[in-house]
Amino acid sequence: MTLVTLPGPEWVDAVGPVSGIELAVWDLDGVPDRADEVRVVVPPYIGAGERLAVLSQLPHLELVQLLTAGYDNVLAVLPDGVRLANATGVHDASTAELAVALTLASLRDFPDFVAAQRERTWLPSVFHESLADKRVLVLGYGSIGRAVAARLTPFEVQVTAVASRARAGDELVRSVHGVDELPELLPHHDVVVVIVPLSDQTAGLVDDEFLAAMPDGSLLVNVARGGVVETDALVRHATAGRIRAALDVTDPEPLPADHPLWGLPGVFITPHVGGASTAFMPRAARLLQEQLGAYAAGRPLRNLVARD
Amino acid sequence: MTLVTLPGPEWVDAVGPVSGIELAVWDLDGVPDRADEVRVVVPPYIGAGERLAVLSQLPHLELVQLLTAGYDNVLAVLPDGVRLANATGVHDASTAELAVALTLASLRDFPDFVAAQRERTWLPSVFHESLADKRVLVLGYGSIGRAVAARLTPFEVQVTAVASRARAGDELVRSVHGVDELPELLPHHDVVVVIVPLSDQTAGLVDDEFLAAMPDGSLLVNVARGGVVETDALVRHATAGRIRAALDVTDPEPLPADHPLWGLPGVFITPHVGGASTAFMPRAARLLQEQLGAYAAGRPLRNLVARD
Repeated sequence: MTLVTLPGPEWVDAVGPVSGIELAVWDLDGVPDRADEVRVVVPPYIGAGERLAVLSQLPHLELVQLLTAGYDNVLAVLPDGVRLANATGVHDASTAELAVALTLASLRDFPDFVAAQRERTWLPSVFHESLADKRVLVLGYGSIGRAVAARLTPFEVQVTAVASRARAGDELVRSVHGVDELPELLPHHDVVVVIVPLSDQTAGLVDDEFLAAMPDGSLLVNVARGGVVETDALVRHATAGRIRAALDVTDPEPLPADHPLWGLPGVFITPHVGGASTAFMPRAARLLQEQLGAYAAGRPLRNLVARD
Repeated sequence: MTLVTLPGPEWVDAVGPVSGIELAVWDLDGVPDRADEVRVVVPPYIGAGERLAVLSQLPHLELVQLLTAGYDNVLAVLPDGVRLANATGVHDASTAELAVALTLASLRDFPDFVAAQRERTWLPSVFHESLADKRVLVLGYGSIGRAVAARLTPFEVQVTAVASRARAGDELVRSVHGVDELPELLPHHDVVVVIVPLSDQTAGLVDDEFLAAMPDGSLLVNVARGGVVETDALVRHATAGRIRAALDVTDPEPLPADHPLWGLPGVFITPHVGGASTAFMPRAARLLQEQLGAYAAGRPLRNLVARD
């Protein structure tokens, strides 16, 4: 039996028995029982950061299976010879759903209705923006970007996909545009949904020039990472009433109480809850079942992360 | 040339020239110029109610083309021999979109985030409900119900359609259940979206028994008419924390400031904005183009309403 640690008893219940695997509970707090037997560790979804150093205390550790898509903080402390797999795909449904929810709630002015409800006021009937007929640019066309496009399609919209390089399309979009085409594309879109990974290439990608190319009144939706957007530039364009924004991620994050983004007209902020939903655990449990089954059987693993 | 009145100059622009038709602007305020030549009247979308009596002053009126799906108030004052057509289909995109937006915003606790934003507070990371994996019952499976189902489908949900009578399914649902099956169906659904027309059969359909059959913590979304839900019963179930609700329509409507619904936990209210969006005019203009073209050419009309 291969000893695998999961971050809580609820994970043992969700993953269930896996042939050839013994499941134990360990949340990376202190050194686990039978530390020299542990072969695979699944760290907690949230807050593992500072505790990851303990991995070096496991002499026979072979694999760290993350529950997050991001892994930068783990690479730095991963012991030599230990393989790392992330949770690509696990957050697609939850994050794509949030992107569409933010888009709809912003266009149809839900924050105004919430405020009116608190004041027990039935607002007069005026017209609000519909998602229907909008031209939506999905910036980042990996698995979450495709999940966003799939959810948008029945809303009678025109979806444009943009990725780092132009390539052929799929069943959702005729073609995928390259990021170099943004200057020509942006002026012709009403909504931009950002779901690129944060990297040297994408840090600050949504800068003053990017925002200036978006039409008056258009909407920026960020479910990627705060650092993809130059916050100061966004504050300027939103203050001028030119650009609306729905942000699940910000830079800095968490957003301090005195930050101007909180109070800008047309800006709606959610506190980085893209992946934090009930969609997470069933999808994560399925990934763990597959990975641990493959590990026990000596089959190839998914989602392995290459070291630089 | 057949003289047709549209309710404002923006409608003349949107509908554009129609062969054989002369378009004039009249919002039913006073008697129009050339009243004896008017053959077709399109009343204003909002607020025509009290002015409809003026239709009896048009001696050669043949057709009233509404911009609403509802027509009860018009039948009462429609002169003998004048045909009536409604705007079925025109509001599908806007209303179905709102139903999905209300569902997403409620499940993922957007009202809490709006409140936190006003207080400049970044809420701690906790898990919220996802639409993914939910069992959604769409009650009312006409054109808007189908539009709701189409928009829900990519969200990895299980959609159940219910109509007045059971019938075969379509490309979205395997079968359509009859309303008599609700007692067995309701306990197995997390979200109920109500989009039935208001009639003697549907008034008060969502009553105490209906709500009691919904599981603890489930969500009622009403984008139909306020009278389909027994408000007192909903207040009781929401006060007990059993049922959450997202309501675009209420009974009474508008909701008075002292009504208990405003302040109940888990209840989100929008002020009857289902059809009031930018999706409306392009779809209404297309209907008018088709109807007026058919009228001028003597072809059959769509959406004709039978008198009782």
